[in-house]
Amino acid sequence: MEILKERIRKEGKIKEGNVLKVDSFLNHQMDIELFSEIGKEFKRRFEGAEINKILTIEASGIGIACVAAQSFHVPVVFAKKTQTKNIAGDVHTTKVQSYTHGRIYDIIVAKEFLGEGDKVLLIDDFLANGKALEGLIDLVEKSGAELVGAGIVIEKGFQAGGDALRGRGIRLESLAIVESMDEKTGRIVFRGDAANK
Amino acid sequence: MEILKERIRKEGKIKEGNVLKVDSFLNHQMDIELFSEIGKEFKRRFEGAEINKILTIEASGIGIACVAAQSFHVPVVFAKKTQTKNIAGDVHTTKVQSYTHGRIYDIIVAKEFLGEGDKVLLIDDFLANGKALEGLIDLVEKSGAELVGAGIVIEKGFQAGGDALRGRGIRLESLAIVESMDEKTGRIVFRGDAANK
Repeated sequence: MEILKERIRKEGKIKEGNVLKVDSFLNHQMDIELFSEIGKEFKRRFEGAEINKILTIEASGIGIACVAAQSFHVPVVFAKKTQTKNIAGDVHTTKVQSYTHGRIYDIIVAKEFLGEGDKVLLIDDFLANGKALEGLIDLVEKSGAELVGAGIVIEKGFQAGGDALRGRGIRLESLAIVESMDEKTGRIVFRGDAANK
Repeated sequence: MEILKERIRKEGKIKEGNVLKVDSFLNHQMDIELFSEIGKEFKRRFEGAEINKILTIEASGIGIACVAAQSFHVPVVFAKKTQTKNIAGDVHTTKVQSYTHGRIYDIIVAKEFLGEGDKVLLIDDFLANGKALEGLIDLVEKSGAELVGAGIVIEKGFQAGGDALRGRGIRLESLAIVESMDEKTGRIVFRGDAANK
């Protein structure tokens, strides 16, 4: 998605530890006009697929998912992160290891909002090691819902998450896949770029 | 806003401790068509006001704010909740006391995304004791931005937050104000209802 890549090249900041900061338009300040284009692109890529629910995870996935949902005309459910010890029996739950914070947290979805008959598209802003997405997939599987695929705004192609999920047969549509980025020069190469061949 | 009140009457669940659960359409599963109508209603109420940014707080405010922003054609910024001790100098920060959890947490917004020249509309899903909204107002004041007002989906009119903020001269537009609710009968009375006079 060219307008997205241009935006990442222009405003993305590469930080130590393979961090790509895009908080001017994606996950702190949010450019809603861009989100609308992103939603249309997800719709185009999943054209013809039967989808009746979008599932995302708090917090930064919610904005993208809600705007994208307008192209799909389906409700959005967001998985909640919780550190609560006692999880009630009326939720699906799984554990996710946070790469950034190094700790493990639970994510939950109420059973009444995810279950058999649901055809689910996952949406999130970032995919790196894939732990959050794996958690969402696990919730879908536990619920008996059908996983249609996942739409990701930015995938870090140099981390293992995306290719591992593709290897499992998950349909993964990432709108910009960063193949490499250089903290010193600020250069970002996307998968499929001519410069990358 | 009548369609919102009808939805609350139909799907809202009253729980012990003055809890109103509306997670089938507002803050866990999210009805995006309803969000779109809510966004248009905020736009109608703030018609003529100069607004160039919407500020909300994670997590459940983000969906409403992003969909509403499509009616205003402005970016959204969400304040992040953090328990991190060392806050860098490049953020505005304030403390918020959580009514539900009884603890105090920090909320932050990067200085580059909120400051002088910004004319800010606050948006959130719920207003009860008003602590989260007070925190957002404090961030706006610290940043030097101008506070235009606040749009709230559901206000609990029987808690002190809303009227206290109106008393401070804050322009507050709540789309449904719950005046009373009865856990035993399930009856919900809204401010302005004939039954309430």
